[in-house]
Amino acid sequence: MRERLRIAVLGASGYTGADLVRLTLGHPRLEIAALAGNARAGQAMGEIWPHFAAHPGLPRLERTDAIDFDALDIVFGCLPHAAGAELLAGIRGARVIDLSADFRLQDAAQFAEWYGVPHPAPHRLAEAVYGLTELRRAALGSARLVACPGCYPTAALLALLPLAEAGAIAPDGIAIAALSGVSGAGRGLKEANLFCELAESASAYGVGRHRHMPEIEQELGRAFGRPVRVGFTPHLVPMSRGELLTVTVTLAGAAPGDLREILAQRYAEEPFVHLLDEGRAPSTAMVRGSNHCVLAVFADRVPGRALVLAAIDNLVKGSAGQALQNLNAMAGWPETLGLEAAPLFP
Amino acid sequence: MRERLRIAVLGASGYTGADLVRLTLGHPRLEIAALAGNARAGQAMGEIWPHFAAHPGLPRLERTDAIDFDALDIVFGCLPHAAGAELLAGIRGARVIDLSADFRLQDAAQFAEWYGVPHPAPHRLAEAVYGLTELRRAALGSARLVACPGCYPTAALLALLPLAEAGAIAPDGIAIAALSGVSGAGRGLKEANLFCELAESASAYGVGRHRHMPEIEQELGRAFGRPVRVGFTPHLVPMSRGELLTVTVTLAGAAPGDLREILAQRYAEEPFVHLLDEGRAPSTAMVRGSNHCVLAVFADRVPGRALVLAAIDNLVKGSAGQALQNLNAMAGWPETLGLEAAPLFP
Amino acid sequence: MRERLRIAVLGASGYTGADLVRLTLGHPRLEIAALAGNARAGQAMGEIWPHFAAHPGLPRLERTDAIDFDALDIVFGCLPHAAGAELLAGIRGARVIDLSADFRLQDAAQFAEWYGVPHPAPHRLAEAVYGLTELRRAALGSARLVACPGCYPTAALLALLPLAEAGAIAPDGIAIAALSGVSGAGRGLKEANLFCELAESASAYGVGRHRHMPEIEQELGRAFGRPVRVGFTPHLVPMSRGELLTVTVTLAGAAPGDLREILAQRYAEEPFVHLLDEGRAPSTAMVRGSNHCVLAVFADRVPGRALVLAAIDNLVKGSAGQALQNLNAMAGWPETLGLEAAPLFP
Amino acid sequence: MRERLRIAVLGASGYTGADLVRLTLGHPRLEIAALAGNARAGQAMGEIWPHFAAHPGLPRLERTDAIDFDALDIVFGCLPHAAGAELLAGIRGARVIDLSADFRLQDAAQFAEWYGVPHPAPHRLAEAVYGLTELRRAALGSARLVACPGCYPTAALLALLPLAEAGAIAPDGIAIAALSGVSGAGRGLKEANLFCELAESASAYGVGRHRHMPEIEQELGRAFGRPVRVGFTPHLVPMSRGELLTVTVTLAGAAPGDLREILAQRYAEEPFVHLLDEGRAPSTAMVRGSNHCVLAVFADRVPGRALVLAAIDNLVKGSAGQALQNLNAMAGWPETLGLEAAPLFP
Repeated sequence: MRERLRIAVLGASGYTGADLVRLTLGHPRLEIAALAGNARAGQAMGEIWPHFAAHPGLPRLERTDAIDFDALDIVFGCLPHAAGAELLAGIRGARVIDLSADFRLQDAAQFAEWYGVPHPAPHRLAEAVYGLTELRRAALGSARLVACPGCYPTAALLALLPLAEAGAIAPDGIAIAALSGVSGAGRGLKEANLFCELAESASAYGVGRHRHMPEIEQELGRAFGRPVRVGFTPHLVPMSRGELLTVTVTLAGAAPGDLREILAQRYAEEPFVHLLDEGRAPSTAMVRGSNHCVLAVFADRVPGRALVLAAIDNLVKGSAGQALQNLNAMAGWPETLGLEAAPLFP
Repeated sequence: MRERLRIAVLGASGYTGADLVRLTLGHPRLEIAALAGNARAGQAMGEIWPHFAAHPGLPRLERTDAIDFDALDIVFGCLPHAAGAELLAGIRGARVIDLSADFRLQDAAQFAEWYGVPHPAPHRLAEAVYGLTELRRAALGSARLVACPGCYPTAALLALLPLAEAGAIAPDGIAIAALSGVSGAGRGLKEANLFCELAESASAYGVGRHRHMPEIEQELGRAFGRPVRVGFTPHLVPMSRGELLTVTVTLAGAAPGDLREILAQRYAEEPFVHLLDEGRAPSTAMVRGSNHCVLAVFADRVPGRALVLAAIDNLVKGSAGQALQNLNAMAGWPETLGLEAAPLFP
Repeated sequence: MRERLRIAVLGASGYTGADLVRLTLGHPRLEIAALAGNARAGQAMGEIWPHFAAHPGLPRLERTDAIDFDALDIVFGCLPHAAGAELLAGIRGARVIDLSADFRLQDAAQFAEWYGVPHPAPHRLAEAVYGLTELRRAALGSARLVACPGCYPTAALLALLPLAEAGAIAPDGIAIAALSGVSGAGRGLKEANLFCELAESASAYGVGRHRHMPEIEQELGRAFGRPVRVGFTPHLVPMSRGELLTVTVTLAGAAPGDLREILAQRYAEEPFVHLLDEGRAPSTAMVRGSNHCVLAVFADRVPGRALVLAAIDNLVKGSAGQALQNLNAMAGWPETLGLEAAPLFP
Repeated sequence: MRERLRIAVLGASGYTGADLVRLTLGHPRLEIAALAGNARAGQAMGEIWPHFAAHPGLPRLERTDAIDFDALDIVFGCLPHAAGAELLAGIRGARVIDLSADFRLQDAAQFAEWYGVPHPAPHRLAEAVYGLTELRRAALGSARLVACPGCYPTAALLALLPLAEAGAIAPDGIAIAALSGVSGAGRGLKEANLFCELAESASAYGVGRHRHMPEIEQELGRAFGRPVRVGFTPHLVPMSRGELLTVTVTLAGAAPGDLREILAQRYAEEPFVHLLDEGRAPSTAMVRGSNHCVLAVFADRVPGRALVLAAIDNLVKGSAGQALQNLNAMAGWPETLGLEAAPLFP
């Protein structure tokens, strides 16, 4: 293996791609060989992004079709769903880490149902590794195509999978209330994304039907050993980054303290997943800009139920950071490489 | 009855008291006779509050014990819980509208359990009218002591009571996820209330145990005809005003569309409660600064459940506005008097 | 005159037009006869705006060319510059209050220079009354066409004109630093207006060349009796509403206390312009949502200079509120009609 | 010299101290030997700060008098002015980097005038190096006591000193308008620092008299070779971090392009000071969380004047980052060590 891996980021003009570039600048063993973004091809990152105005050394954006993929070790896909799947599926030399939704669902029909288009490359689905690093790292060492989980599923599954696998919670009755910063909506020019529409306002969206549902259900279903349905209601709150999930679960014989214990043991050696001290509730300020996930468990007011809470930075652990963590696992490096920075607060 | 009622506001140096003063300025039949705030006695409202800097005509704050209650028609209590209960309970001439938690719970023992102090005036509890205007207005005409509901209970009960009374939802399994602006935490000098601690951050608090729980349970219990327990998790989000509730309910034979229909009929004539068009989710921007409550119903992803959503301005419909609405009902005036202003957006 | 004047708002899908509608709802002598917005024609205000979701009684938007202008008393123009000038210039029956930049500059060549297009209706320029109410109300009674000042010029001129007229400040050396909320940039779909681009960020824009410069210079030039040039640097800060100006002026023989005295006398009877107590600095929180302007004067650190500060709500006193104040003056009504509401805080 | 220097941070419960700890975690040659904060002694950083909740390895806070200063290489003072001066002045073994205002002004009488107390250790003033790294690094190698500049002076002096030294601007007529995030006000429990008081609001403060004035004047006076007075008006805007200065200067024969050229040459080799492309205005988003300073020059509307703009993160380049940069210079290390991270955006 080379001393430094040569990477490309497709979609470097979006928030996810840009955060990947930001993190990559602090990674000692990566070299950015190419940045792509068709609509902005020819522009410098410092023109497209304020935070790169003082980082003139980055490559200019180029068109995706101008990239020599054979000269690369790793290709990161940060494109909208369905936009890059065919291209990524055809890459042979480089290993692919996709941050879009394209290779997360294993069932092409389900993809078509939730995303409204036929899957562009169904033949690669079986092979794609669902890159929730903490729970799939065994498969990453040899993976050629990694599908990074969605931001909400990352938090939900880190909170719930160990509990489901341990049989401590029931598969039915799960209700997830999620709060998200605005960057999750992307950099698209929509009225709903304007500052004045969002400041001093909280709203629910995708109520009863959000594209991250089937992804959560797919992975929880594996853990429970049978199909499950989860309630999931995301809310948009006036901040740029951060995601907070409060999950109501039905206890399966266990007590809330047992849930704590299961999570404590499961994540004892994990550098990025932290169970908070008993009685302390998560805040997105605990993770902003970092790859951390913080978890907590509380007894619910309703007997027989518990509350599991999780906070992540949607652009880092929920996207670009986890992608880099996956790369580290794929390369056999320490998973924390380039991801050690503490959160930024205030 | 006098052409203008003479009112006093106890606690005019807090957010709730100040918003009551703001609304009162637009009410044609009220005269502010006295404003009280012991810690700020002697100061002008324009010194204490930026938004009254250009409203020099308001009375200066005085000490509570300097007020001649016999010269008043209405006393509004905007003091912290337990701080004003004894005083308010002893007022004889004026009618009392209390915005604190003191007279909401009918059971003094429950008050002591949740608020950590013995109830200061248990003998008045039986008489206090729980002032959720839309659902108790019949009792307001002759009320001498009105306990305005908490902000979260206001939104929760407007969403749930008609459904409970109609038997359309089950008493068990209710899970409320609530988002609140920071003003709900008051103007106290706590590190947790500082700008830098809250900006760009979302957090949960009071998880599993929040003082608004027993109040919601008391009123839902009446409607269901038996004791209930509700899950309720409040979250703090970086905005000043507004409250958004997403309630997961278990259907009792009904379909989500039935829930819509029940709410539509129940609130058809109400000036301040609005059921949104099907498929539209509430946002606190719909109500900021106004006495409105907006509601919506969605089918949940989990069969047999539904989602009921509600948004209010915590300081208006959740507090000062509802207090004024109660006053209008007590005085036999149109309930909208002084409360007609549209929300402020952006 | 009719009991209620029939008005139309052209551009009701923009922030200015919407705030005019909001204020109009609280005005006792206006009737909204028509709302126009070509791109949204057919839609209800409650679909276009969150804060009208609970105000279903408003007219739907229609196309401008569908409006019967002969049936109207007043037409408010809230369109982008140059977009409505020709139409407005051709209206004969109704009186026109234009909130755009089109009729502010008296010199068509100057308009062309700063706005990049020939003036669409130069023949009406001489007749247009520059609607800075406090300083031009004598001309409003008979005005057929009123050009409401820009938001920055409103604050700048309220602060400076009395001082210039009194000869207390020098025409040279004026430097205006302005801070503005984001709503001043309008509701257009530009990347720069997205929440994530603006939150937690302050920036300067239009540095050295902003379209409000010639307008300020035109009016100051009249007061000084000779052409002037002013430095003016606007900054964008992460809030929706509000404008704060800090103006460095060179004293012409006067002392800072003299400036205070001039402003105090000039605005003693004005309902919307308030000189703050000595030593108190303006904040936009003092005026949010209201038609107030607050002013202050300080000695500068540099001898021979002073600082004059002003805060307004850019959408109210800086736009829709002043337009309504102008209407009141045109109709011979109290200028405060419909504008009495106190600011919203927090 | 040791492989790793042992440092202590006095005042680790304040924003400046915490940001120093955050940055130190990414510095390869520092070891945090002690963290002090008397009011919080005994507590873990993860209890005091959200962003350290997932960083359990940090030392607990201890009382200042419990620290063995002889075992340290470097002591960082992050205490309020006058609180730590005597202690710091008495430290003999370790080198001291003070982030407070105590050793910035060389004249003890001036300190007393502006800070309202006699200087606690005037005998060390002559020796203290004013740690504006880019302009004083020659003196840092042997410095025992470094006084880090204030946040506003850092930005102002980086923008102005090279121009003053080159004789390109006049010493008179300087007017600085500054915008600052709230963290500059510290973590103290003041009503003015509460979220609800600051959100959606911009205000001026310290108008005509701010403690950073004499510091700016002291350093500019050195450069100009004679005493100067500068106008300086800071404004508080609703964001946590970031500082933006717009400085109006009078040209001394030079053209605005000359100013650009002077800055370009002066900072060509500096890793943290960047002149933006012509026509581009600074934004604090360009520097958030990083040690960068971005600069720009524009022609002013008023002939003979120019505008120089600067943006920094007040907690990093304006405080903790510059302190670390100074440490690097003192130790003979690359100045960028531990400070390479790109800004966080959005």
